[in-house]
Amino acid sequence: MPNIVFNYFPVKALGEPSRLLLAYGGEGFEDKRISPDNWPAYKPSTPFGQMPVMDIDGKQYAQSYAIARYLGRKYGLAGADIEEDFQIDQNVEYLNDIRAKAASVHYEPDADYKDKKQAENSKNVYPAMLEKLDAILKANNGHLACGKLTWGDFVFAGIYAYLKTMLQTPDLDAQYPSFKKLEEKVYSLPKVKAWADTAPKCDF
Amino acid sequence: MPNIVFNYFPVKALGEPSRLLLAYGGEGFEDKRISPDNWPAYKPSTPFGQMPVMDIDGKQYAQSYAIARYLGRKYGLAGADIEEDFQIDQNVEYLNDIRAKAASVHYEPDADYKDKKQAENSKNVYPAMLEKLDAILKANNGHLACGKLTWGDFVFAGIYAYLKTMLQTPDLDAQYPSFKKLEEKVYSLPKVKAWADTAPKCDF
Repeated sequence: MPNIVFNYFPVKALGEPSRLLLAYGGEGFEDKRISPDNWPAYKPSTPFGQMPVMDIDGKQYAQSYAIARYLGRKYGLAGADIEEDFQIDQNVEYLNDIRAKAASVHYEPDADYKDKKQAENSKNVYPAMLEKLDAILKANNGHLACGKLTWGDFVFAGIYAYLKTMLQTPDLDAQYPSFKKLEEKVYSLPKVKAWADTAPKCDF
Repeated sequence: MPNIVFNYFPVKALGEPSRLLLAYGGEGFEDKRISPDNWPAYKPSTPFGQMPVMDIDGKQYAQSYAIARYLGRKYGLAGADIEEDFQIDQNVEYLNDIRAKAASVHYEPDADYKDKKQAENSKNVYPAMLEKLDAILKANNGHLACGKLTWGDFVFAGIYAYLKTMLQTPDLDAQYPSFKKLEEKVYSLPKVKAWADTAPKCDF
């Protein structure tokens, strides 16, 4: 068994997808949660001054989607061919568009400007983007792509709580039941559930 | 030969990487440049209300990095295994981090806030990120990853002019000669050159 350490902040956010994939892979991994206090000391030794960073037998892997795609291929959760892989990549990239759009508002330091942008996006941007995402899930048998379980579903399930926080829409579960259902589908996979049951609880 | 149409705005930006890959692939493609005036009419028929959109025999492909990765694999520019593919994905994702960071300032509508952010990033953020990017190219024999030509190089070459515009640093060529050199390396590949010589000229 390789020695795997997954380093990320003590939140789900952009690290949880790969934690779920590592749990599914069943090789065992150290789920190392670096507090904001300890981050400055660790940061200089990371490839890009960012987390997550996964260490496998001492080799470092960085960038959240690159890691998730890699683990997905490693653990048999990729597409059957480049056409299916494309569908997963495309829909994951779209999901990230929504997250990035919302994050740029969420992390806005100017409070007035933030409120203005949030009101504007909630009215003119997010509804159409979320409708489209819902349509994708419905067209794919409840999955993010290819009509079956892929690493894209792990990305969705892993960032869903974070996405809700970024969007500032706590009622998303009720608005789009397909979202909650996909999150639960991944968290219910036996190895994922066994890991998640004992993992630290995080709001997002 | 498949019928390939590549739809994007009349700029390089996020579409040029895939134009370069299509040129390299040599199957021929229609380089369709949609003006901002014509975009609203086309937009509703795109998968996500965004461009680029590539049509292959009527099938639509969206999301710029997903398309580039797909074309890279199609035309023999992927890694030799999932470890190499990971390296490409990781470094492309990092390159996009820089672009996204700079774009969020470039597209900022509040002029005062924009100036403040630009000054702050130019001092505290961009230099370290660009140093790291330069180090990556130097460690990879002038390439973005794997020490050899991959689709990651096409992403770099395609978005380099756009990156300079977003960063508002026209002197980047002189500061980091490795950047300009990689851009030229890709644009000098015979099939790419033949295409680029007759393609519409764009500043970014």
